[in-house]
Amino acid sequence: MLDANPAELRAAVRAGEHTGPTAGVCPGFTQANLVALPEADAFEFLRFCVHNPKPCPVLDVTDPGSPEPARVAPGADLRTDVPRYRVWRHGELAGEPTDAREHWRDDFVGFLIGCSFTFERALQAEGLPMRHVEQGVNVPMYRTSVDCTPAGRFSGPLVVSMRPMRPDQAIRATQITSRYGPVHGAPVHVGAPEAIGIEDLARPDYGDPVEVRDGELPVFWACGVTPQAVAVASRPELMISHAPGHMFVTDARDAAMATL
Amino acid sequence: MLDANPAELRAAVRAGEHTGPTAGVCPGFTQANLVALPEADAFEFLRFCVHNPKPCPVLDVTDPGSPEPARVAPGADLRTDVPRYRVWRHGELAGEPTDAREHWRDDFVGFLIGCSFTFERALQAEGLPMRHVEQGVNVPMYRTSVDCTPAGRFSGPLVVSMRPMRPDQAIRATQITSRYGPVHGAPVHVGAPEAIGIEDLARPDYGDPVEVRDGELPVFWACGVTPQAVAVASRPELMISHAPGHMFVTDARDAAMATL
Repeated sequence: MLDANPAELRAAVRAGEHTGPTAGVCPGFTQANLVALPEADAFEFLRFCVHNPKPCPVLDVTDPGSPEPARVAPGADLRTDVPRYRVWRHGELAGEPTDAREHWRDDFVGFLIGCSFTFERALQAEGLPMRHVEQGVNVPMYRTSVDCTPAGRFSGPLVVSMRPMRPDQAIRATQITSRYGPVHGAPVHVGAPEAIGIEDLARPDYGDPVEVRDGELPVFWACGVTPQAVAVASRPELMISHAPGHMFVTDARDAAMATL
Repeated sequence: MLDANPAELRAAVRAGEHTGPTAGVCPGFTQANLVALPEADAFEFLRFCVHNPKPCPVLDVTDPGSPEPARVAPGADLRTDVPRYRVWRHGELAGEPTDAREHWRDDFVGFLIGCSFTFERALQAEGLPMRHVEQGVNVPMYRTSVDCTPAGRFSGPLVVSMRPMRPDQAIRATQITSRYGPVHGAPVHVGAPEAIGIEDLARPDYGDPVEVRDGELPVFWACGVTPQAVAVASRPELMISHAPGHMFVTDARDAAMATL
């Protein structure tokens, strides 16, 4: 399925033929984080995203009650087209099904939020290091001491991902990711982890630690885990998300996420 | 008041000392379009904006019931700090007060939407022509045959503003405004007006006609009139907007709207 087009990949997911992670799948097409919430929570959550565009870039919002992300994947179904889901009840993990139809409610609103896979491909295309890819692990992610702008019941810390780079590489990576405003954009911090409340780079809050070599700086980007962590922390009655690494594959091209 | 800081300007507006247009006021600070709607309409309207980011760049959304745009102008009051308002009942203009307190409702949500004043200053700084400024008129705006992505009851055509430029100027203007993703970004069309459903450049739907000289192309940008026109056309029970040219002045700097 690696080279399938997004519609073919989603059909395979829907049929239960692809239930694994989506890293490397459908190269060139944008993958997205899923958050689905009851309509009663949806306006506050969308306000939270609009107030925090770097960690929460909204690629699509469904009509209430519709599972179709008509803007980025017309004809797709968010209840079936994600390889693996997480079901959260009152903020507690209640299951990891491969099909969300039995949990989905008629009043649900689905949110698709940009993912760093998009800009990582642009960085790799210029030969910049992706240490977590080299080491075959997940990117390290950290809760910071930086608060997001709250909206109603939704509030919490900014979560960042980290990629170690030499200073010249960090500068080039800043230029490249600045073009990708709709998918996290430029870094939010470079250098001293303690300045944003990270005590130990070797102990990330999500994902895995990676080696930071002599002469390298840690470079931090706003992370799409932020909205999901914030939504779970607010303990909504019911919420459905993708399982980590098991993303929704859209019809939007990575290259189209660059604004310049 | 031309060189006031935004808080001073807003205090003068609140005191009734400044009731005129805001063109040229508080140079360097971002001005914004206002739309205020009952909470019952607010989620659909915000979804409309998120689905149509070029004409509807959301700079701030208030908490329901709060008139404070806490993100871009902490301490300000959207009921009093706009020089002149328009009050709309069921889509019909019902008044143009300089103070909106008697019309504002406890369930209102205020939206501040980016304005082309921001990128016009960047274009003028490079000597690119602003024909409407030279001629002392309002920028010409046109309803196009391009439909916005609908959201619930909100749908309608894309409205564009037009500035005539030589081809080399149009290319440079495209580069410059591409940096201003949060305030309409790059042009949406250049050249043939009929390709986007505009029959006669000399008869704009809003604003005033301007001269297009030999060797110049019309260059079209998505316009912040779009969300207001769409909101009015949906005939909400009550809506409050700014009066044309009488914008809300934020604390955000124009330069900070550039993403690269």
